[in-house]
Amino acid sequence: MATTVLVTGFGPFGEVRENPSAALAERLDGEKIAGAVVRGMILDVATGRVGRQFAAAIAAHRPAVVLATGVAAGRSALAFERVAVNVRDFAIADVDGERPCDVPVVEGAPDGLLATVPLRAMLAACRDAVVPAYLSPTAGTFVCNQLFYLAALAGRREGFAAGFLHVPLAPQSVSSSAEAPPPTMELATMERGLRAALGVAVPGAGR
Amino acid sequence: MATTVLVTGFGPFGEVRENPSAALAERLDGEKIAGAVVRGMILDVATGRVGRQFAAAIAAHRPAVVLATGVAAGRSALAFERVAVNVRDFAIADVDGERPCDVPVVEGAPDGLLATVPLRAMLAACRDAVVPAYLSPTAGTFVCNQLFYLAALAGRREGFAAGFLHVPLAPQSVSSSAEAPPPTMELATMERGLRAALGVAVPGAGR
Amino acid sequence: MATTVLVTGFGPFGEVRENPSAALAERLDGEKIAGAVVRGMILDVATGRVGRQFAAAIAAHRPAVVLATGVAAGRSALAFERVAVNVRDFAIADVDGERPCDVPVVEGAPDGLLATVPLRAMLAACRDAVVPAYLSPTAGTFVCNQLFYLAALAGRREGFAAGFLHVPLAPQSVSSSAEAPPPTMELATMERGLRAALGVAVPGAGR
Amino acid sequence: MATTVLVTGFGPFGEVRENPSAALAERLDGEKIAGAVVRGMILDVATGRVGRQFAAAIAAHRPAVVLATGVAAGRSALAFERVAVNVRDFAIADVDGERPCDVPVVEGAPDGLLATVPLRAMLAACRDAVVPAYLSPTAGTFVCNQLFYLAALAGRREGFAAGFLHVPLAPQSVSSSAEAPPPTMELATMERGLRAALGVAVPGAGR
Repeated sequence: MATTVLVTGFGPFGEVRENPSAALAERLDGEKIAGAVVRGMILDVATGRVGRQFAAAIAAHRPAVVLATGVAAGRSALAFERVAVNVRDFAIADVDGERPCDVPVVEGAPDGLLATVPLRAMLAACRDAVVPAYLSPTAGTFVCNQLFYLAALAGRREGFAAGFLHVPLAPQSVSSSAEAPPPTMELATMERGLRAALGVAVPGAGR
Repeated sequence: MATTVLVTGFGPFGEVRENPSAALAERLDGEKIAGAVVRGMILDVATGRVGRQFAAAIAAHRPAVVLATGVAAGRSALAFERVAVNVRDFAIADVDGERPCDVPVVEGAPDGLLATVPLRAMLAACRDAVVPAYLSPTAGTFVCNQLFYLAALAGRREGFAAGFLHVPLAPQSVSSSAEAPPPTMELATMERGLRAALGVAVPGAGR
Repeated sequence: MATTVLVTGFGPFGEVRENPSAALAERLDGEKIAGAVVRGMILDVATGRVGRQFAAAIAAHRPAVVLATGVAAGRSALAFERVAVNVRDFAIADVDGERPCDVPVVEGAPDGLLATVPLRAMLAACRDAVVPAYLSPTAGTFVCNQLFYLAALAGRREGFAAGFLHVPLAPQSVSSSAEAPPPTMELATMERGLRAALGVAVPGAGR
Repeated sequence: MATTVLVTGFGPFGEVRENPSAALAERLDGEKIAGAVVRGMILDVATGRVGRQFAAAIAAHRPAVVLATGVAAGRSALAFERVAVNVRDFAIADVDGERPCDVPVVEGAPDGLLATVPLRAMLAACRDAVVPAYLSPTAGTFVCNQLFYLAALAGRREGFAAGFLHVPLAPQSVSSSAEAPPPTMELATMERGLRAALGVAVPGAGR
């Protein structure tokens, strides 16, 4: 059976009506990268539901690699996250109106979990693909971090590698006005970087 | 005789080895936009020489519109400058090693000169082209502002419209490392925005 | 008759309930600096009224120096403005609900006017007083710039030196929450810098 | 025996010649706060030595609370760190010329460790003291994070509460030039916030 890579994106939330991470998951769904089949899936920015949605995806696809993605307004490049933290502290409400404050993602689980995808190789692959990228020391404390934490925890239990990629806003999401907009990246550029990174994240991809 | 639009870019300086503004000027040279012929020209980031280079280009091409362009590391979108200021105060040396401090661009000339290209229409054109853009209140006090000032001054005398566009760094100019890079924009995106903006800046373009 | 220095501040606007520039104007009112008497005055952030208020202050005090001050959220240090621009383009409404877009401050007047206070000496004075400061290339296009422009224009006509100082938010204006607040400066530090700067801006202060 | 609070600061490194965290540790050394005695101690920004220095301080003082502090250029307020990460990845060399890349702080230890000081109470205390502060999701991957990690690990073993406070640059550390400096905070303001925070961090302080 072919190796499967699960790429998740998130749906709209707050002021982000078109979430570029959802577009990325859609674009890659069904593609083959480094001999693996990519499954793309869009999850809801909902603290009370994202865990079940993610668990169902894992059960259905039995991936060898999970790369979750999300958008972070203000980021200027692809950001491969180093560490997931066992904290939920939301600056804004999620799509269900939930706004936890200093609540663990999983009660009694470790405080932090490092990414288990090959961060340096993924970074180098983006550089080779001329896609600006960096290693980020924090995925925040919102639903993105929650999903990353859940993936990292499940990955240790079930044997898959887990990582999280924060992407900038896409040009479609910012309005051109008299004021300077936040940084953006074209979806095609994000996709180029994501494909390059996945190409070295698949086990046995010869890195 | 066809209407001419002069688009200038700058060569390398400081840490910018591949100046995206030079690439833009090259890409548009010889193109037709809104019935006008575009002339692209690359100038040196040299305070003592840029004036002569620009004057020669004006004499050669007799443009109806001048849009000078330059790169500004840290900018996150296309920045149409509102105003040129009669000050040179360089934070770094130019390519000739010159570093003027609080020296006028043109002794005895006005303190400031507003852009005479149609800023709002150009901004709207970028928005329609899905290219992030904004109106910037300052072009700084480096060679970019100097050229903008010279263009604005000459334009008032010789009857052409003058403007300045600051562009972000291109992905080629930032290294992907562990640290977050500055914002970037793909050259193709910059070019799309520049073409859209010029399309409404040509006199009689029916805006 | 003693030389007079006019220091203006602004009242509250938008999210700034306690404007540090108002506090500065109050603190300095009646003080003597470098042999001059300081007159402090608080103006309204109202595009339709600030001109009359300022003209009345000039008529009443006949200052030799005008240093207008205002707050700029996000600034990290004292910012001595280089140039006032003949444009009003408001990102938010003023206190009267006015929000001009691309309207001149004074129809038919010059596009830009440079500060006529001794910027470099004022900067050096702040450095000596251990108050972070810099020269800013733009005062924006809101009421602050409008007042700066009006002061610079009147100063050329009536013979006084004119400048504008943007100050950071004060600690009182930011809430300590889970999110990083904008930069702040203690009012006492602002006052120390302002006093130092005025000390070299008074004519004959021996700079 | 009196309860002891250990406050550490760091010595100079890189471009920071006068580290405000060292000044804070000195200022608080010997003070009494909420019935506890504060011991201040200055450590070296040296990845190979900071562990031994810290262990010696713990052995000497047997503190009930450890609040390590360090400076972070660019931060705009007091930043109480949420989590220490078991990674060393230095963007610059430490004072011994060491520059580890993706090396654990302690081999085989947990990926991350949350602060065990009362973050929310400390944040509220700063707010009451009118000192801008926030909860930071990352202490970076330099020596500051290393010390925080070591303190959090030792604290779990030896029964003390551990936290880390990043402070902005002090005005003394930035030069006033034509360019905008990074945010700063007066040492007296930092000290006011630190005292307020410690006042609620001492066990039995009645929070």
